[in-house]
Formats: sequence, structure tokens, C-alpha cells
Amino acid sequence: MRNIRLLIEYDGTKYNGWQRLGNTENTIQHKLENVLSLMSEEKIEIIGSGRTDAGVHALGQVANFHTRSALNTREILDYCNQYLPQDIVVKRVQEAEERFHARYNATSKKYMYRIWNSNIPTAFYRKYSYHVPGPLSIEKMRKASSYFIGNHDFQAFSSMKSKKKSTEREIYAIEIIKERERIDIFFHGNGFLHNMVRIITGTLIEIGQGKRKAEEIPIILEGRIREKAGVTAPAQGLFLYEVYY
Amino acid sequence: MRNIRLLIEYDGTKYNGWQRLGNTENTIQHKLENVLSLMSEEKIEIIGSGRTDAGVHALGQVANFHTRSALNTREILDYCNQYLPQDIVVKRVQEAEERFHARYNATSKKYMYRIWNSNIPTAFYRKYSYHVPGPLSIEKMRKASSYFIGNHDFQAFSSMKSKKKSTEREIYAIEIIKERERIDIFFHGNGFLHNMVRIITGTLIEIGQGKRKAEEIPIILEGRIREKAGVTAPAQGLFLYEVYY
Repeated sequence: MRNIRLLIEYDGTKYNGWQRLGNTENTIQHKLENVLSLMSEEKIEIIGSGRTDAGVHALGQVANFHTRSALNTREILDYCNQYLPQDIVVKRVQEAEERFHARYNATSKKYMYRIWNSNIPTAFYRKYSYHVPGPLSIEKMRKASSYFIGNHDFQAFSSMKSKKKSTEREIYAIEIIKERERIDIFFHGNGFLHNMVRIITGTLIEIGQGKRKAEEIPIILEGRIREKAGVTAPAQGLFLYEVYY
Repeated sequence: MRNIRLLIEYDGTKYNGWQRLGNTENTIQHKLENVLSLMSEEKIEIIGSGRTDAGVHALGQVANFHTRSALNTREILDYCNQYLPQDIVVKRVQEAEERFHARYNATSKKYMYRIWNSNIPTAFYRKYSYHVPGPLSIEKMRKASSYFIGNHDFQAFSSMKSKKKSTEREIYAIEIIKERERIDIFFHGNGFLHNMVRIITGTLIEIGQGKRKAEEIPIILEGRIREKAGVTAPAQGLFLYEVYY
């Protein structure tokens, strides 16, 4: 069987996320599986690098699937983009090694969180950013972000319920780029817990607004209590940016 | 009476344009007039710098209206953005001189036409660009665009039916900026006929694709026959970028 690797971009606005337990109809994975199954006349199951929540976007989701289809990679790409809804785009199709697994082989991930920092809303980024009016100190946010770098137990910055799984992760870098009203925060790490990027972002915003101090971060990490961290920033500002292998 | 000047941004996807003869319900002007009339408890009529067609966007539409409202400019701005649909945003509110008229006083306008030039579609720009796959020669498009600069009779590049009004306009500059898959064409001129930017863009694309030669432009201008020019590029790529006074 061939093993095919996909690079996928999606506007998550309308979807219940990449994959969903229970009602899976309105998920990105389901839309892709439908189109690929029609294409190959097989029942295709795809493996994503990981889930993204309802309303979260992706610029570089990676997935793979096995198929006996005789179509070449270019034909697969064209078929997908012809039959997928317009808010899901396959950017690249590659032959992968038999043992390539989009989830298990992912070594690190990069997320981007986009903030629209202006007293005036935005007509064009309204579905692709979190509107935060009022002053935001980038300097304070950068200082606070430095406390997250490295290996930490991120339980306080996660909405994971299970106590069984490890909540330790390593963040390699957090980069904050401001261009006029737009603030993009890039998070690169070996893995992220459920809602981790959104809770860290919510906390960074509160620090940027002067509602909290950067120095609280190590104490919150240490305490491992979700309620001590900031609010969960909304899904619409979050983009799965890149998956590394 | 106060004369208030507005700077407006809108995502035109869902609307029948700025203003429409006949059914005016689903127009941007109508949405604005509704909110401003509620705010001021007067029947507000606004004057736009000009119409934009169904599906066309604006980053810098300008309008004005007269009111007896006692609200200050900041309060007007906040009221508008609170009650307008999210795809229409008032970016600035200013007191204008009594005789300021958004249409009559406009001295020139700038439009932007955005092309997505890639064999792969885009999930995020799909409503804000025209997807043109295959090679496009920017060099040829730039050469062709130079023939439009200056004072010309643009009848061939307009869908205007009436023979009574002048079809002479002056284009000051056409700038073509390519950044990866995105090609933005900026048109600055003293005024534009109906569909003029979209027909010029459609023609430039055909030249970029090698289907026509740049040297045809002066002949088409001279002939003044609409059918000799290229197709009308779709509305979703067009943005009213700035209005000058």
C-alpha cells in the first residue's frame, strides 16, 4: 500500500475541529476522508498530526493515509482541491515511507496566535484574530513569555482533565511580532496540551494589559492549578502553523 | 447641522454593494443609515464617495452625513461599531466642514485588485482574491499597464451603457506588487467608470498569460469597443483602497 502525506490549510470557522468524538460529521478530517474515499473507491482513514479544536485554523496541518489508488500525487492534489469545500485546501501531496505516521513521528509543532490590538475592530481579520482593544505592552508580554521557555509541567495552562497523562512539555521559543494593529505570537514546542496555547495567550494578554505581573508565571507553573492562570483566548485567533518531523 | 465624515472598511462578500437602485435593503449604505438613524433619532442619509458593486470590498470608503446629534466623534464611532454587522467597520469619524461632500469633493481614488496566482487555491484569501492558476508574467502585465497611464477615453474598458456621459478618465499610476502567490494591482486615477478596474485587470491577466499582447492596449483604447477588451475580473478581488480629497 502507498502511504501518502498531505499538507493541509483550513479556515476552521465553520467546523467542529479537525476530529471530534461522537458527531464527526462536521470535522475537517471527515471532509477529507470523504473526498479521498470517493477518489480511491476505498474507505480511507487519515491520521492527522493532532487535533485542532472547533474554530481553530491551520496553515500547515499534516496528515497521512494509506491507499491502493493509482493516481499520482499531482492528481490527488487536484482531485482534493476540486471536491473539498473551499475553506479546506490541500497544499501539498507527497509519497511517504511506509512507516511514516503523521502523529507519532511529529517531533515538534509551531502554533500562531493572532491578536487584533486596536480600539477599532477589523472587517477582514474578524474571523482570524482575537480583538483586544486598549493598550497592550509587548515588552511585558515578551518578558512574561520568557518564563515559559524550557521544560515545564504545564498543568496550570491546560484544560486536560485526566491526571494520568504527563503534563510536562518543552517550549523552545515564543516569538511576539507586532505589525501595526496585528500581534502574532508564535509558539514552538515539542508538544502542546489541550488549550495550552490559548491559555498561555490569555495569560500573556492579561500581563500586557497590566492586570498581572510577568513574575507570577513561575509561581503559576509551580502551583499547577488551572484557575490561577489567565482566561482561555478564543479559538478564532489560533492557527496550527507548522508540524516538524 | 453638523457634517460628519466617516472612513469605512467593509467585507463586501454578503452585500449587494454600497448602494443599489431598487432593493436597497442589503447594501452597506443601508446598514450604515439604519444604525446612524437609530443613534441620532433622525432619518440619516449618507453620501458615499461612490458606489462599489456587489461583492466588492473597501479598506477606505469615505462618506458623510448631516446630523443634529450631540454625540462626539468618538461616541459615534463606538456606537457604529457596536451595532453594525461585523463585516462593516467605521475606522474613523471626523467633524467636516459644512460644505464637505464625499462624492463631489473626491479628487482621486485608489483601488486595489488582488490576484491569488498559484495552482493551489487559498483557504484564507478565497473571498478576498481572484484565483488565477498557471504562469502569469508580471513583466508583461507591467508593460501593458503603462499604456493605460494618462488621459484616455476608457469606453472599451467599461460596462457603461449610456453614451451621454464622458468616458474620459485619467489614470495616474498602476503599480503591480507580487509577494509569493499574491499579486496586488493598485490603480490610482481621477475617477473610474463602471467595472473599469475589473476589465483592465481581466485584460492585464490575459496579457500576463500570453493570450494577448501588451501592444494591443492602445488599439483597444482607440477603438472604444467593450468586446475588444478582456473579461471582467470577478468582484471578490476588488478593494476600494483610498479616496483622496
